[in-house]
Amino acid sequence: MASYSTHKDDVLKRLRRVEGQVRGLQRMVEQDTYCIDILTQVSATTRALQAFALQLLDEHIACCVRDAMAEGGEEAAAKLKEANDAIARLVRS
Amino acid sequence: MASYSTHKDDVLKRLRRVEGQVRGLQRMVEQDTYCIDILTQVSATTRALQAFALQLLDEHIACCVRDAMAEGGEEAAAKLKEANDAIARLVRS
Amino acid sequence: MASYSTHKDDVLKRLRRVEGQVRGLQRMVEQDTYCIDILTQVSATTRALQAFALQLLDEHIACCVRDAMAEGGEEAAAKLKEANDAIARLVRS
Amino acid sequence: MASYSTHKDDVLKRLRRVEGQVRGLQRMVEQDTYCIDILTQVSATTRALQAFALQLLDEHIACCVRDAMAEGGEEAAAKLKEANDAIARLVRS
Repeated sequence: MASYSTHKDDVLKRLRRVEGQVRGLQRMVEQDTYCIDILTQVSATTRALQAFALQLLDEHIACCVRDAMAEGGEEAAAKLKEANDAIARLVRS
Repeated sequence: MASYSTHKDDVLKRLRRVEGQVRGLQRMVEQDTYCIDILTQVSATTRALQAFALQLLDEHIACCVRDAMAEGGEEAAAKLKEANDAIARLVRS
Repeated sequence: MASYSTHKDDVLKRLRRVEGQVRGLQRMVEQDTYCIDILTQVSATTRALQAFALQLLDEHIACCVRDAMAEGGEEAAAKLKEANDAIARLVRS
Repeated sequence: MASYSTHKDDVLKRLRRVEGQVRGLQRMVEQDTYCIDILTQVSATTRALQAFALQLLDEHIACCVRDAMAEGGEEAAAKLKEANDAIARLVRS
């Protein structure tokens, strides 16, 4: 079970909206839309992806990381390192 | 004509690849993939969107902004401001 | 006690290095250094600040958030929300 | 002459303010300030550095890149590539 498994439908709905944004970008290109307007939409799409990632990370820490920390030991350290690496990738991308 | 109009196929191919990445994220969710692995894929998708935006911006400056600057006057100032605002949105998103 | 209190000297050394980078930027400006070279140094300074933030966050989760989650209840929820908000600010800045 | 040379004092004032923010971070650490409050200040400092970079880039394009594009040829292409690389570093950092 992943931390989002109880509300998969919401998560999928969010991703389908991002997919819709990317398809919207393709339509803009097909219609020779002005570059700057496309760039504005790319920024909106990037922010939507970031918001998705932040929610997923949020739930992951509240759920998987918490459980591992409750048990302690090597598993806890490994889960923490994994979460920190994911945060670093998000901050840097 | 937008600055990318001469090679729309390449631009569309790039966006279809991003769409494929977003659909890949949906499949991962449907299969209850571990959160951290999904986050890694979100970071890759964000980077692909950024690379797309950087290329578009690159061509926009080399083409539309250059032409406006060659003419000078208010139009040049307006195009420059527009490009700088787009860069700021990319840097901040 | 903050989570970094046991190794404040390291933390301060890191911040002094960032301060040195910002002072280096000032010297570059005083010497009319080429804009692009200054921008390269600004990117390096930003990355140093991010690395500092990621380490602090890392220790904060491993320490304060863990303790709060061990106790559970409202305090745990509050600490988690606080950490997630800080992560979101880092990702978006 | 760099593009900012006519108003160096403003540019330096801005950088001194960033230096003040980094020194403020050191004081916070010395006083065992709560991690989350430090992280909020780090985000503010990062944004100040980004705003500085965006202004510098803005002026660089309006000035050095414009002049090179007016002359055309290899120099124009080189200046454009240089500016695009700097934008990419800012977006990714």
